[in-house]
Amino acid sequence: MSPTGPHSAPLTSAAQPHPRLHTALAHLATFNSDPAAGGITREVYTPEYAAGMEFVSELMREAGLEVRVDAAGNLFGRWEGSDSAAPVVLTGSHFDTTLNAGAYDGVVGVLGAIEAVRLLRQGGVRPRRSIEVIGFAGEEPRFVAGCIGSRAMTGELTRAMLDELVDRDGVTVAQALRAAGLDPDRIGEARIDPVAVHAFVELHVEQGGVLEAGGEKIGVVTWIAAPHEFRLRLRGVATHAGATPMRLRHDALAGAAEIVLAVEALAQDSPSGTTVGTVGVIRALPGAINVVPGEVELEVDIRDSDGAAREAVVDGLLRAAEELCARRGLQLSVQTIARDEPAPCSELVIGAAETACAELGLSYRRMISGAYHDAMVLGAQVPIGMVFVPSAGGISHHPDEYTAPAEIDAGVDVLAGVLARLAEATG
Amino acid sequence: MSPTGPHSAPLTSAAQPHPRLHTALAHLATFNSDPAAGGITREVYTPEYAAGMEFVSELMREAGLEVRVDAAGNLFGRWEGSDSAAPVVLTGSHFDTTLNAGAYDGVVGVLGAIEAVRLLRQGGVRPRRSIEVIGFAGEEPRFVAGCIGSRAMTGELTRAMLDELVDRDGVTVAQALRAAGLDPDRIGEARIDPVAVHAFVELHVEQGGVLEAGGEKIGVVTWIAAPHEFRLRLRGVATHAGATPMRLRHDALAGAAEIVLAVEALAQDSPSGTTVGTVGVIRALPGAINVVPGEVELEVDIRDSDGAAREAVVDGLLRAAEELCARRGLQLSVQTIARDEPAPCSELVIGAAETACAELGLSYRRMISGAYHDAMVLGAQVPIGMVFVPSAGGISHHPDEYTAPAEIDAGVDVLAGVLARLAEATG
Repeated sequence: MSPTGPHSAPLTSAAQPHPRLHTALAHLATFNSDPAAGGITREVYTPEYAAGMEFVSELMREAGLEVRVDAAGNLFGRWEGSDSAAPVVLTGSHFDTTLNAGAYDGVVGVLGAIEAVRLLRQGGVRPRRSIEVIGFAGEEPRFVAGCIGSRAMTGELTRAMLDELVDRDGVTVAQALRAAGLDPDRIGEARIDPVAVHAFVELHVEQGGVLEAGGEKIGVVTWIAAPHEFRLRLRGVATHAGATPMRLRHDALAGAAEIVLAVEALAQDSPSGTTVGTVGVIRALPGAINVVPGEVELEVDIRDSDGAAREAVVDGLLRAAEELCARRGLQLSVQTIARDEPAPCSELVIGAAETACAELGLSYRRMISGAYHDAMVLGAQVPIGMVFVPSAGGISHHPDEYTAPAEIDAGVDVLAGVLARLAEATG
Repeated sequence: MSPTGPHSAPLTSAAQPHPRLHTALAHLATFNSDPAAGGITREVYTPEYAAGMEFVSELMREAGLEVRVDAAGNLFGRWEGSDSAAPVVLTGSHFDTTLNAGAYDGVVGVLGAIEAVRLLRQGGVRPRRSIEVIGFAGEEPRFVAGCIGSRAMTGELTRAMLDELVDRDGVTVAQALRAAGLDPDRIGEARIDPVAVHAFVELHVEQGGVLEAGGEKIGVVTWIAAPHEFRLRLRGVATHAGATPMRLRHDALAGAAEIVLAVEALAQDSPSGTTVGTVGVIRALPGAINVVPGEVELEVDIRDSDGAAREAVVDGLLRAAEELCARRGLQLSVQTIARDEPAPCSELVIGAAETACAELGLSYRRMISGAYHDAMVLGAQVPIGMVFVPSAGGISHHPDEYTAPAEIDAGVDVLAGVLARLAEATG
């Protein structure tokens, strides 16, 4: 123990490259169900995901972690602390991807956490609290709603929902779980006891351009914005594109176009200044050049760290949609996909991260996370925090996603410092 | 021969039901590659189309027609006239369908023409000019551009185009022809000699609501509006829907939404009063709820019987698209799909149709065809005309498409009268 107590000196040293981590990141990227597309596709509960999980499990074992998988397919690697009964420190992220995605989103926080544990262990550190590294199952929205694994841990994901949530091929979560060798009827066993958790900290790429624009190496997250996501269905009349005069049309796509522009305008004008609104999915039927679209489906995502501002945008949008559908003779239906609460980060984690940045001589900024993460879900029950590293060009969910190795290494060093502090490590 | 000459008396009598025709229409509807969808899908050059063609061929043979198939897959049934050297009278339509379509579009004009020939034959009529009933291949836009068969007949469809035009699965026309047992290298043989054609007349369902609204039984077409069709591609940047502030976005779907509304507004405001504009196809990539769309493809169809008015709308739209893409930081590309000329109908056919209506005591109106047809394509080289029967609710290209049997029967009776007059029949 250092003369000034367990937390006064840096527990890791800065500017050390972590080549082992980058080799692991590159290898994990090879578990890909659609390499021809140019990016990485590794959706949860698929054979490629299972193969990737086996690789991550092996990395955990090599780092001295005790591996287990819960009923939702979340992967845990545990480093037993000197006080087995003390509430544990959780860290980690996800290693599933969206379609044709990049190599950093999520995986940096899983493999980076394993690396942080190795660094601490190699430095002779001994934690009082146990530390568990988690690879959350299904953070990305294969089943439209994301964060399947962390929602199972908080109990938000019920047995009934496993039969209701479907992927784009109509496969339910329950079916996907069974295909992955898991038993959907045991989903309740994935639930954690919040009292047994001291805090959760997630290392992640920013996925936006704020750090790059500001020139900081680290983002210390203070709030996680949460999405309100819903599906709008507009039904008009599919008539002939040549034979139907303009005045006789009930064009569902023209109505949908008004909604797309209303989402944009309402988010831009939101007084919080942090609201974002996106229509990421549009489907027009029947989808023929010579037929007026009779039905259009939109998937809308409105987010903010300011929950009231977000709901004001959602309410304004739904009013506008009702008005324009009435005017155009369209039928409107609204289906909620997800409605999450923005999650504040704990000063416990924020403070530990700022201290680690200071000790390591790394520039940082406090910022909100516009993207949601498993941390947002856990934040409803346990103290949370996040550490961001820069995303080149703010690009994410795309093959061009990139964070430089040295930037990832800096994030891992900060994470190691945060874990050591949260776990009350000595060494 | 009647005392007052060959054309002075009705050659068919009104109000006779044609049950044989309706049985045939119902049977043709069973050749369907996607019955589960609820409508009829019978795209050209598919096995279901070939089976349907065999059925139509058999109907032709039963009606005493000599059957042949040309190099483009157009089906012909010939009734030899007393003057084999005289320019022939052509009639017919198509029996391919769009996806999940109705049972009347096109097929009424093919099976109706066969029935008209049978009626004339049974009435002891003898044509001077030969009459040929045609089932045109690929009127519907399986290969995005429609009227494949009739364009081969006019020589507009070149050998090179057979390798360029692709369907939604990337199959070229040449590949589809080969799969149907035809030789793309012989496509030039499908070309007709316009001098050998006296006139072409097509019976068709209106596909709009004009006749229903006006209460007339028959539409005598004076002009066929022609489409200018093109594909617009907008490229922005696919960024994270949560992490990308509104001001940093280049949202291709928001740009596309402006274009959809501009198509509508420009067509509505067109001074001709007959312009229609439709965006029937929209594809947004990557198509995930949590990603700002980075690329959107639109298929646009602008039509009018007034070619100048149509082009003014197209020009205005492309200017608007360039302006908004520049403003939004999007890249725009434009690709022409089809640009056809509006076709006037011949007074020869119009007059024969009006006479037939008068003789049969059927109410009719002169009208334009907003939809294009094979008649539009042939109209560039030979005298053409069209006879419309009402479409319930103006619905077409949809399982709910409907024309009552008695309305179809009336159209067949008019067609028989027109054919008799054009062929200078006696009996």
